[in-house]
Amino acid sequence: MSTLKVAFLGSGNLATCLAAAFEKAGIEISQVYSRNEDNAMAFSERFFCDWTTDISKLDSSAHVIISALKDSVAHDVWDKAEFNDRLVLHTAGSLPMSDLAPYTKNYGVIYPLQTLSKDKEIDFRSVPLFVEANSEDNLKIVKTLALHVSYVVMEATSEQRRSLHLAAVFACNFANHCYAIAEQILNKNNLPFDVLLPLIDETARKVHVLPPVQAQTGPAVRYDENVIGKHIDLLGEGTMEAELYELISKSINTYSKGSL
Amino acid sequence: MSTLKVAFLGSGNLATCLAAAFEKAGIEISQVYSRNEDNAMAFSERFFCDWTTDISKLDSSAHVIISALKDSVAHDVWDKAEFNDRLVLHTAGSLPMSDLAPYTKNYGVIYPLQTLSKDKEIDFRSVPLFVEANSEDNLKIVKTLALHVSYVVMEATSEQRRSLHLAAVFACNFANHCYAIAEQILNKNNLPFDVLLPLIDETARKVHVLPPVQAQTGPAVRYDENVIGKHIDLLGEGTMEAELYELISKSINTYSKGSL
Repeated sequence: MSTLKVAFLGSGNLATCLAAAFEKAGIEISQVYSRNEDNAMAFSERFFCDWTTDISKLDSSAHVIISALKDSVAHDVWDKAEFNDRLVLHTAGSLPMSDLAPYTKNYGVIYPLQTLSKDKEIDFRSVPLFVEANSEDNLKIVKTLALHVSYVVMEATSEQRRSLHLAAVFACNFANHCYAIAEQILNKNNLPFDVLLPLIDETARKVHVLPPVQAQTGPAVRYDENVIGKHIDLLGEGTMEAELYELISKSINTYSKGSL
Repeated sequence: MSTLKVAFLGSGNLATCLAAAFEKAGIEISQVYSRNEDNAMAFSERFFCDWTTDISKLDSSAHVIISALKDSVAHDVWDKAEFNDRLVLHTAGSLPMSDLAPYTKNYGVIYPLQTLSKDKEIDFRSVPLFVEANSEDNLKIVKTLALHVSYVVMEATSEQRRSLHLAAVFACNFANHCYAIAEQILNKNNLPFDVLLPLIDETARKVHVLPPVQAQTGPAVRYDENVIGKHIDLLGEGTMEAELYELISKSINTYSKGSL
């Protein structure tokens, strides 16, 4: 595996974090393609690889192509690329593997179930990687590649991956947005966000030992209308935050009654 | 402080966790009042204290009364209690300290900014406690009491505490509900919730080093309409989960544009 050469389509958060993990594992990154020249160059400088903004110049010596593009542009880029039946892996939660079929005979998926930012280093070995491939042989290659960078490699069908992605949007993006609204509330009142960190940590820690519905506390699950009313007043009726507060509280209450 | 005797009003999650911390610190719990006999007895067995369901039988030897009642019943219980000007501390995020003024000459607040469940042990020493009192002397007592059980004791006005509580509802209760929805999505597809734990942990860890708005990833902040549309279809248009998905995505987008 030490001579394996990988090329990247895309130079965003996912591409950057995955490339960093590959580099650590001794896998060669030969080239990056990005529509954006600055991003391509930054990626190239970080990983000592070639770069191009012209998809027709895709490195023909790379053994595996990793596509880490925004879903909305992926097909467009794949359409213009010459894969010559090399193994192409996409990294998207919500694209079926079969979307790659028109472009190459060898394809698969390597999907990291994690929030990845260029600015935040992460121990990639604990990132769960969900893999899929169009043949047993390709599956072996994808698994080997995945196991080079993570301890947690699991197979998932395109349908399962779609659900994993949707669940991840709630557990990560939406939970993080709750932190963002909390920060704004505190900032408006000259209070530092840091005072919430023990609470945020414990909320995450709790669901390691209790199911989330059982871990729930606060005014919504107690159905404390008194507090709920005060909070909506404080947010300002008609604001998006107040609307969110009402809807989430209603949903918490429904879940706590187990009526779903 | 070793001979200090404390009585509790309420036997819920907060009362139980605070009592456990007091017990560890060598503070005597003399009595618990609860409307619910079973809860009162369970609390009494756990902390070797007296119990009553009759507020007129409040222990007159207790030095401090800790009120850990649901906001909606607090005033009703206080009204029936004979405090005889003993120091009464409430623990509520959204009740002003002055709400206690009609019932005793000595009052204050000890507010733990944490999610507390009877079923989940916690290291109380790292729980931030926000304190307030109606006199310098009482503030000294509240601070001393608080410092017996936590390293993190800060003063906060009733107005600040109200904002802290509202922020905590978002950062904890609403974030936890996002976990609950994620769990439901996975369960429906026979996938275990545990695969999300590294993601949940990293999402919490990230905001220790990046502001939440900067830490955001996923389809909403990328404005990936393709994925957003698929996810709403998957949740089922018209469901509460789909409505939540749309509203939170819209709010993420607004925050990321910094247009607030």
